[in-house]
Amino acid sequence: MMRNKSRNIKTIFDNMEFNKIDIAKETDLELDCGEKLSKCDVAYNTYGVLNKKKSNAILICHALTGDQYCSDLNPISKKPGWWSNLVGPGKSIDTKKYFVICSNVIGGCNGSTGPSSINPKTKKPFNLDFPVITIFDMVRAQVRLVNFLGIEKLFAVVGGSMGGMQALVWGALYENKVRSIIPIATSYRHSAQNIAFHEIGRQAIMTDPNWNMGEYHEKKDKPDRGLSVARMVAHITYLSEYGLQKKFGRNLQFSKSFSYDFNIDFQIESYLKHQGTSFVNRFDANSYLYITKAMDYFDLSTKKGGLSNIFKDNRSKFCFFTFTSDWLFPTSETKRIIKSLNSSNANVSFVEIETDKGHDAFLLNEPEFHKILRGFLGGLEKNGLT
Amino acid sequence: MMRNKSRNIKTIFDNMEFNKIDIAKETDLELDCGEKLSKCDVAYNTYGVLNKKKSNAILICHALTGDQYCSDLNPISKKPGWWSNLVGPGKSIDTKKYFVICSNVIGGCNGSTGPSSINPKTKKPFNLDFPVITIFDMVRAQVRLVNFLGIEKLFAVVGGSMGGMQALVWGALYENKVRSIIPIATSYRHSAQNIAFHEIGRQAIMTDPNWNMGEYHEKKDKPDRGLSVARMVAHITYLSEYGLQKKFGRNLQFSKSFSYDFNIDFQIESYLKHQGTSFVNRFDANSYLYITKAMDYFDLSTKKGGLSNIFKDNRSKFCFFTFTSDWLFPTSETKRIIKSLNSSNANVSFVEIETDKGHDAFLLNEPEFHKILRGFLGGLEKNGLT
Repeated sequence: MMRNKSRNIKTIFDNMEFNKIDIAKETDLELDCGEKLSKCDVAYNTYGVLNKKKSNAILICHALTGDQYCSDLNPISKKPGWWSNLVGPGKSIDTKKYFVICSNVIGGCNGSTGPSSINPKTKKPFNLDFPVITIFDMVRAQVRLVNFLGIEKLFAVVGGSMGGMQALVWGALYENKVRSIIPIATSYRHSAQNIAFHEIGRQAIMTDPNWNMGEYHEKKDKPDRGLSVARMVAHITYLSEYGLQKKFGRNLQFSKSFSYDFNIDFQIESYLKHQGTSFVNRFDANSYLYITKAMDYFDLSTKKGGLSNIFKDNRSKFCFFTFTSDWLFPTSETKRIIKSLNSSNANVSFVEIETDKGHDAFLLNEPEFHKILRGFLGGLEKNGLT
Repeated sequence: MMRNKSRNIKTIFDNMEFNKIDIAKETDLELDCGEKLSKCDVAYNTYGVLNKKKSNAILICHALTGDQYCSDLNPISKKPGWWSNLVGPGKSIDTKKYFVICSNVIGGCNGSTGPSSINPKTKKPFNLDFPVITIFDMVRAQVRLVNFLGIEKLFAVVGGSMGGMQALVWGALYENKVRSIIPIATSYRHSAQNIAFHEIGRQAIMTDPNWNMGEYHEKKDKPDRGLSVARMVAHITYLSEYGLQKKFGRNLQFSKSFSYDFNIDFQIESYLKHQGTSFVNRFDANSYLYITKAMDYFDLSTKKGGLSNIFKDNRSKFCFFTFTSDWLFPTSETKRIIKSLNSSNANVSFVEIETDKGHDAFLLNEPEFHKILRGFLGGLEKNGLT
């Protein structure tokens, strides 16, 4: 694992030490909103060994609440990394062959600069003074990280959900720096319904009195109630109606009869509440606002003269994955961008995986998905890792 | 309109005078939870004239946030009644022919006894001391109202969403008191996903500090923030993904560029926020808890030995309506109960209406739906209004 210990600093959000670099040390990072960051840490983790030709590097982009710990053990939660069923020695993204890089997005709360970081001008946390960032800004920061690691061309960029949005940006705007793009359970733009669900999450946070206009870091009480409700709303959208019915149905949690009060009756209630309350221990409310906003702002078709033009003469290889029961990023959305790629004569594959696990399927053990992804990477290797 | 002015009293929730009767005046109303109500007002409204044979009465059952003002002008909101496109003189449910009764459900906040009513024992509002009620309890109260009005057999019971659940209970348990049942956009049980969305709404309310364990009626600040978020969550489920995309897409509300802050950017955000903030002026937070819980508890298949048995020898005529883009109560749920009715050799029709308006379609001007409903009632009339 590449380490850069001299640059480790303590963050506001917790006392973890992160492996990170300041990608704005030499040149300010210009953001879509017009503001600049004069200091911008990117916390990252790597797995496997970079080969001499520096041709075996895969960048993994995480989703809304993900982090840089995609494989092995997450040192904070002490649980397996969020994609450890896909990424690791002998896994589909085999860290015995590939050098895997995974970084925390800017705006996040796992070591990368975000709203809870110290504002160099005021020496206090940014909170709402942190500029609103976009998916394009997140990728700008990743590009600098990859340059810092001395890698000219990535073997692949892989990501699901918001990570897939980042992968698409790499494919569309940094084509010369990447050989293949694997966008999973994602879209080229956030839909009205998805914006609506995010706005509810933000309203839940911002109407929690403990949010206090984002100034809560030095207070005893955090906006945990709002953040918990936000997570519960989002979590439903990650699952399928059929999957929920199959897993929980109308099963009661504690007894054979109704409680006739407002405590938990059904297993689904207990499960959701647990999702909400456990989330607040690992995520920052302001970061949730910033990252959901970045997703809502995302629309690749606003770049380079629109979707029909954006992949013109693109020589990267694309492999898209969707999941039949994913209603957050349905297959129909992916088909639109595939049309655009095909009409540009791009090299594009598309696989729809049959599953009842909804959007979450991209994080779960879906053998067909894992097998095909392994095969796609293997096919690229045949043409050499250079 | 039948009036019973002597029984009008002022309610806690607002100073409106409602047309209501105490259906527990002679006999306590026994509830599913085991408790009894010794006083139980049912606020109701009627349209049209009851014929001499008392054979032209149609009971309309309202949905979660509905009320007794289904036609004409709502005297509280000064807006048209919630089903005035369907119910009224010359409309599909023609008040020149039929005597239409519509009552506020118990647990509600429009004049019927609910959590904000005075507890006769303490002379203070019930708040959380109000017993948790069920859809079956709501119908028990309606049955007494119909008896009070001197009607032995209803011509029809019609309802959408939660109103459809009530219609199904009439059809299953009070078969001798009704000739036909029209359940619209509903199900015989609430699904895991629907319970999940309701639980989020309840959590949003109960985590609002102003909720104060339900004791907020005498306070200056009500749990408006929580209730508003609850309404926003629910409102998304009433619309279809396609409909939202078509109506709002990614259109911006105020300008041509992003705000890069956490105010409103997209039209869909503005629309949803408006839905939330306007809702708190017409609905009570505790009632929202009680009524959502009643819906979550609803499962008709727990009665009379299960779904396969419940409609045995049933001689009512059923006409079900579903809407293609309704994902809250999808057609697949209705098909299950239709199977059960058919296997009992019941008289059942089923119509699926093609629309992109989602669950809300049942409240909107859907000409095909209205035309078929009119035709179904007309067919029954041919056999006489007796």
